[in-house]
Amino acid sequence: MFVLGVDPGLTRCGYGLVTKAPGSSALTAVAAGTLETPKDAPIERRLLELFVAMRGLLAQYDPAVVAVERVFFQTNARTATGVAQASGIALVCAAAQGCEVAQYTSNEVKLAIVGYGAATKHQVQEMVARQCGLSGSLPSPDAADALALAVCHLVGSSLRAAVRAAEARR
Amino acid sequence: MFVLGVDPGLTRCGYGLVTKAPGSSALTAVAAGTLETPKDAPIERRLLELFVAMRGLLAQYDPAVVAVERVFFQTNARTATGVAQASGIALVCAAAQGCEVAQYTSNEVKLAIVGYGAATKHQVQEMVARQCGLSGSLPSPDAADALALAVCHLVGSSLRAAVRAAEARR
Repeated sequence: MFVLGVDPGLTRCGYGLVTKAPGSSALTAVAAGTLETPKDAPIERRLLELFVAMRGLLAQYDPAVVAVERVFFQTNARTATGVAQASGIALVCAAAQGCEVAQYTSNEVKLAIVGYGAATKHQVQEMVARQCGLSGSLPSPDAADALALAVCHLVGSSLRAAVRAAEARR
Repeated sequence: MFVLGVDPGLTRCGYGLVTKAPGSSALTAVAAGTLETPKDAPIERRLLELFVAMRGLLAQYDPAVVAVERVFFQTNARTATGVAQASGIALVCAAAQGCEVAQYTSNEVKLAIVGYGAATKHQVQEMVARQCGLSGSLPSPDAADALALAVCHLVGSSLRAAVRAAEARR
């Protein structure tokens, strides 16, 4: 199953595609990168660039699930509008492609990957690299955050499946 | 020239199409209404519904300009994410259709239409109805806000054209 994680942003939008072999817990990072749009372009052109690039990614990889970071506005009001608009673009592209959509907060991702919500970015990135079989060179921070979202979804799915299986055995 | 005003929102997104006859200052409201998406549907389905409806409106009327309310996050954090995502959808649809895009804050709209930024919603709606030749029945508040955005753009365009003409005569 392919899961595409998306760390939404207008200047830099991270994406990371992770797959899990059936019957195994091993994860593999298939692709990761950053979609960038020029800061000095009009907002509607930047959103359209992001839309076209995101649609292209989804058509290329056809993931079963798109996991997008859930946006909050308390954190950084200056960039919040662009982040929310970029997340809207990712969500609409996923829905148009017929993908399942999941949203996770930054804390949920940290909890799923490192085990506690106050983990540092560096700890998350190290764990993601280890879990995805990436050795040495980490992708960009935005791509790493996107991979973390995909891993968070897959780890959560495995947990939910294990709980269901345990309940069925009772 | 057709101008489509958009008052972005996820539950209710107002739209209003206003036209100005060449060489005249008379405005006419051509269409106005509200695009609604079900509150209990997943966010990505709601954004896709809005995207499809907005694309349909733009294909039907092919406005030269789309005037979208500029979103701020200080105002209402609870609904801010949805409003920003809806505005992103309107902006990306406008760019994909090749329309010119303008964004105005609520205060800019009030200033352009009533003459001061602290005008009440009711004052704005009355002025918009008068300026658009609407008699009696006003459209819904969201549609009225959208018409106000279109009027704001057209009034501003007329002012800018008048200034340019005056400067050319010097």
